Amino acid sequence: MSFAPVYFDWNATTPLEPLVRDAMLPWLGASETVRFGNASSRHDYGRQARAAIDEARARVATAVGAHPTEVIFTSGGSEANNLFVKGAAACLKPGMLAFSAIEHPCVREPAYQLRRTGWTLKEIAVDAQGVIDGEDWQQTLLARPTLVSVMLANNETGVVQDIARLAAEARASGAWFHTDAVQALGKLELDFRALGVSAMTLSAHKIGGPLGAGALVLDKRVELAPLIAGGGQERGLRSGTENVAAIVGFGVACERAVARRESESQRLAQLRAELEDQLLAQGAVVFARAAERLPNTVFFAFDNIDGETLVAKLDRAGFACASGSACSSAQPEPSHTLLAMGVDPLLARGAVRVSLGRDSTAQELSRFVGVLARVVDDLNKLASIAV
Amino acid sequence: MSFAPVYFDWNATTPLEPLVRDAMLPWLGASETVRFGNASSRHDYGRQARAAIDEARARVATAVGAHPTEVIFTSGGSEANNLFVKGAAACLKPGMLAFSAIEHPCVREPAYQLRRTGWTLKEIAVDAQGVIDGEDWQQTLLARPTLVSVMLANNETGVVQDIARLAAEARASGAWFHTDAVQALGKLELDFRALGVSAMTLSAHKIGGPLGAGALVLDKRVELAPLIAGGGQERGLRSGTENVAAIVGFGVACERAVARRESESQRLAQLRAELEDQLLAQGAVVFARAAERLPNTVFFAFDNIDGETLVAKLDRAGFACASGSACSSAQPEPSHTLLAMGVDPLLARGAVRVSLGRDSTAQELSRFVGVLARVVDDLNKLASIAV
Repeated sequence: MSFAPVYFDWNATTPLEPLVRDAMLPWLGASETVRFGNASSRHDYGRQARAAIDEARARVATAVGAHPTEVIFTSGGSEANNLFVKGAAACLKPGMLAFSAIEHPCVREPAYQLRRTGWTLKEIAVDAQGVIDGEDWQQTLLARPTLVSVMLANNETGVVQDIARLAAEARASGAWFHTDAVQALGKLELDFRALGVSAMTLSAHKIGGPLGAGALVLDKRVELAPLIAGGGQERGLRSGTENVAAIVGFGVACERAVARRESESQRLAQLRAELEDQLLAQGAVVFARAAERLPNTVFFAFDNIDGETLVAKLDRAGFACASGSACSSAQPEPSHTLLAMGVDPLLARGAVRVSLGRDSTAQELSRFVGVLARVVDDLNKLASIAV
Repeated sequence: MSFAPVYFDWNATTPLEPLVRDAMLPWLGASETVRFGNASSRHDYGRQARAAIDEARARVATAVGAHPTEVIFTSGGSEANNLFVKGAAACLKPGMLAFSAIEHPCVREPAYQLRRTGWTLKEIAVDAQGVIDGEDWQQTLLARPTLVSVMLANNETGVVQDIARLAAEARASGAWFHTDAVQALGKLELDFRALGVSAMTLSAHKIGGPLGAGALVLDKRVELAPLIAGGGQERGLRSGTENVAAIVGFGVACERAVARRESESQRLAQLRAELEDQLLAQGAVVFARAAERLPNTVFFAFDNIDGETLVAKLDRAGFACASGSACSSAQPEPSHTLLAMGVDPLLARGAVRVSLGRDSTAQELSRFVGVLARVVDDLNKLASIAV
């Protein structure tokens, strides 16, 4: 499938994969077999919905090396992150929550909310490459946090943290360790047991699945208060009638994403390397270039060129890219991830993200590189006239 | 459209209405126009998603006489009820939350959670017909609750409360008044302003819309802390990438439900009256029969016949009904609604709910009445042998 304009914003959301859609359509009554039902109902409709959810739960669990009973379905990644932060905190004596300075707002904001209930917060610093700072990490552990949350891969820079080591050290010091793996799923190998985390957040719409489904994968030793309490669905941890179509789609999307991960990651890494060479040749700064990163993500900037303006120009020229992270792009501030890395705020304002996906091609990238050169040139000329 | 088995559980969930589905399919890539996008993205994909959400918001607002900016989209009714109860409480000094004894668990359970934060609770009694007890209501107001939640129509009995009066009295005594209108939407006339409530919960999947979308309609004078904090979507009151397809479907479903409400309600009330005559003739007790009720709902029981058993037998005979409410049917206790009405627990255990919808026909009901008589007869014979 190809899209017009060219879609280079796969970290923001992804189009539904055809096989995922096919699995969902019966649950939307849009195929010969019409399926619907409240999974709590004790009749044939309800039982079929329940069976479809069970099957999806097994698929998601298998994709990340977890047990199906460890998968708590939510409406998405933001809900899963909030569920861990607030849900775990509600079952503990107020203590310290430590989280990296580059977490997504849906970890940071619930953390800020916790302060009202007596919790203290510690933002863990990252270095100039966006990697957790070793010294600050040791300081953090010495402060004995009760809860720790560090994302596996950053949505903007793509930087990957050494979660297995961080989780082992945090748990050895007595903390429950959570990782937001929304951007890692389907791009990196992901094994709940091997990572040794207490909890992990997943999202369907980042991997070719639908909006409206995500999960918190949870070690059962972690006690959790539900964010949405009520009918008692999801072992009492997430009430509300299950969104069967979205959950079914999530299951298939997980299976597909894991199946193609290795070949796709290689292909995208190759495309990304060529793109970065061209960007550097054009004088761009590529952020976190020396760090281990997701194979599909490039975060870059040109000196003296505003990122918002560049994204708007590229949009008009037929390329959909992001400036800052999509979820928080309503805010005009420069990327908090880049600021945490110590990037000059002026340069940070220039940041543009290209994130590739399963339909991205070398042809699209080579056209992009040409258009980008022209657009940047035009903007530079405008700037020099303005001066 | 007709279903096999016959579907008599429309209060639990409803099949997608074809026009709703048609509006959703582009957003699932399942039509000639493929649409997808993160509504926060600043490119063409994102802007189209944003425009679709805005249009849906206007449709939902129009359907209930509210302003579009008063509509906060959530993942469903349970989330909207939790958002009001916990979100409003979080912005107030701990006080008293009063809620009717027949609220759905997704109002009662978050209320119980509030006790940990210093709130006191008051369950407002109902009379034998399931209507808010006048004396207990006055007692409640004298106790000066800060928050009050009374559902508009009960999911099990269908009993309708005089929300306009209750809301006026509660607000006159200084409380914010919330109503769960999930079962009322599309079955009763619903006007946010005329009801005079501070907040109102809606759900898409009860009215021919999709699972995964609901709303809290909120008077902006009510301060609310988000349940899901993060990227700042929905005026900061509900973060998370918007489920565009579900929201679009919700908008169309609202429009359709309101358009056919009057004629459908008359048709269903007629069918229901005939069904009740037959049930009474067979010796059933119809709960809350003297109260004003939703036109589509009958909640009944036969002496000495277990509701779960009866529902299972009816399921095998081709009729999908509910025992107790679907969302909490994992619990074996008799309906808390009936217990609150003072119904004998033994009789309450026999409760079966038939809820009709847009595809229900007189033919289905006349077949049902015949099958029910036979099944009840069989169960009575078994019981007499067992004795």
